[in-house]
Amino acid sequence: MSAYRALTEAEAIDYARQIPDLFQKDSELTSREIGDGNLNLVFHISEPSTGKSIILKQALPYAKVVGESWPLTLDRARIESEALMIQESLCPDLVPHVHAYEPELALTVMQDLSDHVIMRRGLMERNKYPLFASHIGTFLARTLFYTSDLGMNQQDKKEQVKRFINPELCKITEDLIFDDPYTDSPNNNVPPAIRDAVEAVWKDTELHLEVAILREKFLTQAQALIHGDLHTGSIFIKPDSTKVIDPEFAYYGPMGFDIGAVLANLLLNYAAQEGWSPDAASRQDYRNYLTQTIRDIWKKFDSEFRALWDEHGVDRMSKTPGYQDLYMKRLLQDTFGYAGCKIVRRVHGLAQVADINKLEDEAAKERAQRIALAIGTTLIKSHRKAESIEQMIEIAEKNVS
Amino acid sequence: MSAYRALTEAEAIDYARQIPDLFQKDSELTSREIGDGNLNLVFHISEPSTGKSIILKQALPYAKVVGESWPLTLDRARIESEALMIQESLCPDLVPHVHAYEPELALTVMQDLSDHVIMRRGLMERNKYPLFASHIGTFLARTLFYTSDLGMNQQDKKEQVKRFINPELCKITEDLIFDDPYTDSPNNNVPPAIRDAVEAVWKDTELHLEVAILREKFLTQAQALIHGDLHTGSIFIKPDSTKVIDPEFAYYGPMGFDIGAVLANLLLNYAAQEGWSPDAASRQDYRNYLTQTIRDIWKKFDSEFRALWDEHGVDRMSKTPGYQDLYMKRLLQDTFGYAGCKIVRRVHGLAQVADINKLEDEAAKERAQRIALAIGTTLIKSHRKAESIEQMIEIAEKNVS
Repeated sequence: MSAYRALTEAEAIDYARQIPDLFQKDSELTSREIGDGNLNLVFHISEPSTGKSIILKQALPYAKVVGESWPLTLDRARIESEALMIQESLCPDLVPHVHAYEPELALTVMQDLSDHVIMRRGLMERNKYPLFASHIGTFLARTLFYTSDLGMNQQDKKEQVKRFINPELCKITEDLIFDDPYTDSPNNNVPPAIRDAVEAVWKDTELHLEVAILREKFLTQAQALIHGDLHTGSIFIKPDSTKVIDPEFAYYGPMGFDIGAVLANLLLNYAAQEGWSPDAASRQDYRNYLTQTIRDIWKKFDSEFRALWDEHGVDRMSKTPGYQDLYMKRLLQDTFGYAGCKIVRRVHGLAQVADINKLEDEAAKERAQRIALAIGTTLIKSHRKAESIEQMIEIAEKNVS
Repeated sequence: MSAYRALTEAEAIDYARQIPDLFQKDSELTSREIGDGNLNLVFHISEPSTGKSIILKQALPYAKVVGESWPLTLDRARIESEALMIQESLCPDLVPHVHAYEPELALTVMQDLSDHVIMRRGLMERNKYPLFASHIGTFLARTLFYTSDLGMNQQDKKEQVKRFINPELCKITEDLIFDDPYTDSPNNNVPPAIRDAVEAVWKDTELHLEVAILREKFLTQAQALIHGDLHTGSIFIKPDSTKVIDPEFAYYGPMGFDIGAVLANLLLNYAAQEGWSPDAASRQDYRNYLTQTIRDIWKKFDSEFRALWDEHGVDRMSKTPGYQDLYMKRLLQDTFGYAGCKIVRRVHGLAQVADINKLEDEAAKERAQRIALAIGTTLIKSHRKAESIEQMIEIAEKNVS
C-alpha cells in the first residue's frame, strides 16, 4: 500500500481518463466529490459533451464517526470491489457495475447511480416501491444461496471464506450492534427522553442471553458471503430499479444478518411514521405498505431460495427430506433475531437513523424510539420461537396500537 | 514447493545432523523409516552413543487408502506443525515437542514418542489408563477454549481461521464421514454379514436429517481450532503420559467433533469387547472401565472449560447468566451427534478400525459391528435431545444387554 495517496479532484479526473472504452479522448471531464468524508472519497466524474458519468470511490485510511477518528484498513476496498463483482455475477441488475479496481489506491471505479435515490430518503418521503420486495428478495436468495455450501463447490467456498476474512469491519459490528447497546457504554448515544427504556434494556438478562446467542453466530457461522451492512442507506432505488451498494462489511456470516438488516430498516421507518405521516389514515396506509413489503420480501426470498436449492443444490445430503424446511425455519429465526439487534442499536447506539432522528416533533420522535425499541427487543426475545413472517408483522402492529 | 523431494534415509540423517543443540557433532546416527507409506514418511533417527532420538515426519504429495492413490496437498505439513505448536503452547505435556518445521520439504522434526504406544493398540490389549480421562479432558478444554471466541482475541481468531482453511483434508471428512456411509457409495466397505443393517442405515431418512444437520455444522461453524481426526490412533499413551499427535486435519470447526471423536473410539472398543474379552465378567469389567472413562472425560472437559471461561473469558456478552449452561448443553449435543457419525463410518465406511476388524471370531466381529452401528445411529438420532453424558452411557449399555 506504499503507493497509496488520497486523490485530488484533478487526479481523479486523470485517473478516469485512462479507463478504456469509457470517455472520449481529450474531452472535458468534471469532478465533484460527493462523499461524506467519514470513510471514503467519492468522486462523481462526468463528461458534459456526452452526458456519461462514473463514480470513483476511494477508501480513506481512517473512519470518522460522530467526531471520533480511528485507523481503518484499506483492504476493505478490495473486499468491497470483490464482493460487488461476485454479486454482479449472480444478480447483474441489482448492484452497480464495477469498471475497475486499483489495489494500490484502494480505488473502485463503478457505475454512476445518480438517477436513483438512497432508499432511506425515499421511505422518509413516504414513496412506495412496488418492485423492491421482489428485487431484494432475489438479491438475498441468489447472493446467499450461491455463496453457501448449498450452492457452490464446498472446497472453493473455503478459499472464498479466506478471501473475505474481515476482522476490522466485523469488529465494528461486534461492538456497536452486539455489545454496546446492552450496557452503559460510552459508545452509546442515549436519547434523554427514553433513558428509562434504555436502562431497562441494560438490565434485561433474558434479552442479553438471546443477544449472546446471535453474537456467537455472527462470530462463528461461515454460512454465506453476506453484505454485512444491508440497511436502507446501502440501497439506491427508483421505481423500476434497485441497486445494493457498499458491501465493505462483507464476510462469511449468517444469512439472517442480511435479511434481518433489510426488514429492520423497514421497521425503523414503520416506527418513525409516528412523525412522518400527516394523519392517522395515511400513517396506517404507509405502515400497511411497509408490512406488506416485509411479507413479500420473505416470501420472495423463501420461494426463490428453495427453487435454487431444488434445481442447483450441490450437496447430496441437503436433499434429505425435512432438511430444507428445518433450514428455512432456522433462517427465519435468525432473521427475527438479527432484525431485532439492528433495530435496537439504531435507537440508542452510536450510529442512529435519519428516519427517527430527523423527526422535528419531539413527542413523535420519542414515541418512534419507544416503538422501535419495543419491536426490536421483542423480536430478539422471540427469535428462537419464530415460525412465520406473520409473527414479525404482528409484533410490529401490536407495538403501535 | 519446487525444492520438495522425498528424503532418503541418508538425507534424513544429514538433515537431522544440522538441527542445533540436539546430537553431538560427528557422532554416528541411524535412521529407520517407520511410516506406513500411505501419507507420510516417518524417519526415526537415533544416536546410539547417547540414546537420544528424534522423529522426522515428511508429508508425501499423495494419499493411499485401500490401494487407491490420489494427490494431496503438502500444505498439510504446515497445518500440522502450526497446530502442534499452538497445542504445545496451551498444553505443553500433551503433544510432542516440535523442534523445527521445513516448509520446502513439508518436513516436521519432533519429539520421539517410542516409549509410548498407540492407544488403539493399548485398548485392544485391554490396558487401563487411569490418567487418560484427565489428560484428554484437559487437552480438549484448553485447546478448544483458547482458540475460540471465548478465550482469544476475536480479531486474531479470524486471522487464525484464515491460516487453517484446509479444504482438501476437510473434503475427506465431508465425504467419508458425512456422506458415503449413508448411501450405497463405492467408497464403502460393507461387511457382508451385516448388509441388512447397513441397508437399513441407507434407507433411514430420519437418521439422514440428523447427519445433514451435523454435516452443515462441520461445513460452517468456525468455533475453535479442532484437531479434526482425534481417534485413538492419533493418541500415544503410557500410564503416566498422553500425547496427541497428527493434527493434519486441523481447521476451525465445531468443538464437539473432537470430543465426539475421542468418545466414539472408546465406544468402538466397547463394542469390540464382544471378541477381545475372554469371559463375561472381564468383558463387563473392561466395559465399565470404558464407560467410566467416557463419564470422566466429559466431566473433566466440562469443569475445566467452565473454569477457563469464568477466569479467562474475553467476551463481555459471554458472561450473561444462562449462556454458559446453554453453550455446554449444545456442546454435549454436538458431541453425541459427532460421536455417532464417527462410529458409523468405522463400521461400513472406507476406513475402519482394528478394534473390530482384527477380531478373528466372525460371530463376535458381527456382534461388535451390529452393536457399534446401533450405538452410533442412536447417538445421531438422539443428539439434539441429549441432556447428560449419562444418556450416552445408557445408550451403550442398552445395546449390549
